Amino acid sequence: MPRGYSPLLERLIISFQCLPGVGRKSAQRMAFHLLDSQRDAGRALAQALNDAVNQIKHCGRCRMLTEQELCELCGDNRRDDSLICVVESAADVMAIEESQGYRGRYFVLLGHLSPIDGIGPRELGLDLFERRLASEPIAEAILATNVTVEGDATAHLLADIAARHNVRASRIARGVPMGGELEYLDSGTLSGALSGRRQIAIHQD
Amino acid sequence: MPRGYSPLLERLIISFQCLPGVGRKSAQRMAFHLLDSQRDAGRALAQALNDAVNQIKHCGRCRMLTEQELCELCGDNRRDDSLICVVESAADVMAIEESQGYRGRYFVLLGHLSPIDGIGPRELGLDLFERRLASEPIAEAILATNVTVEGDATAHLLADIAARHNVRASRIARGVPMGGELEYLDSGTLSGALSGRRQIAIHQD
Repeated sequence: MPRGYSPLLERLIISFQCLPGVGRKSAQRMAFHLLDSQRDAGRALAQALNDAVNQIKHCGRCRMLTEQELCELCGDNRRDDSLICVVESAADVMAIEESQGYRGRYFVLLGHLSPIDGIGPRELGLDLFERRLASEPIAEAILATNVTVEGDATAHLLADIAARHNVRASRIARGVPMGGELEYLDSGTLSGALSGRRQIAIHQD
Repeated sequence: MPRGYSPLLERLIISFQCLPGVGRKSAQRMAFHLLDSQRDAGRALAQALNDAVNQIKHCGRCRMLTEQELCELCGDNRRDDSLICVVESAADVMAIEESQGYRGRYFVLLGHLSPIDGIGPRELGLDLFERRLASEPIAEAILATNVTVEGDATAHLLADIAARHNVRASRIARGVPMGGELEYLDSGTLSGALSGRRQIAIHQD
């Protein structure tokens, strides 16, 4: 331990470094900020963190993070039961919800196929996914895993499963993102956008 | 509250935003990181944070952060009692300790003079500083407040106080930082470095 630190301060600085993207310097800055002027906020953060890690678990139906048996999305009976969107993480659910373009159900894999890390169908909860396909009135599974090698492989497996249950499977579109300038895009995105081109419908009077 | 969030998750994301430099997106990333795979680290962070904000206070002698009456620096009797280094924050003490160029005592102002924010001599603990000048064998006060308008003003006030107690006051050197290229320096630094130039001693045989 460096000289001149209180052990509690040192422990706090080390603990902050468990956060993603936080190194020694940021951790120090966080610790001093809270101790200097934001002790109540620090107390509230400690309490929120403790409650969250001890009480938040996964929804029994879609595996979203929730402290209840069923998450708010699964419990909302105004959503469209014929659509199920499969994503890799709870953060993806939040991103899609924020885009406000989807009103169906979700299924969260909590990862992607990665045999080298021991992540297979069981870890992704695919037995639960199959039970939902068999028991719910699902017409289409939207496979919204990440557009990466692992996400694509996972989507392929999911499409096979959907086919076995006579559920239509679709993959989110790949192409040029909003604001994208062709000059700066990688060639994979560009060739995908070209091969996935869609005809423009012109309505003539 | 956005739809689809568990209230505890939402509270955690909002709480993380009390940290400096953490906005909504980073806070989400932190929350998901801890909940997905680092719950023990999250518990440890909550505990460390709670202990720190409840138990860490200021050293009775130098105002450094510590959970004891006297901090480890004040309690270390191998340090030089004739030097006192005055800094604005506990983080400054840690930065100076890490540079390993100083073995004297410290005094932490916990701020700088800022009448507009109601921060005057009392808030900076200058009564305690004066008592130390009067009662300890201090020969020199090194004024290491920030090299800013406020830090300079604070250093002037401290120099006046030191003079009243017949203690020599010095200000940390201002000039070009290590690795500094003149081309990219601001003009204030550059003119300060020129006016503060020092003669080079050549030892001739």
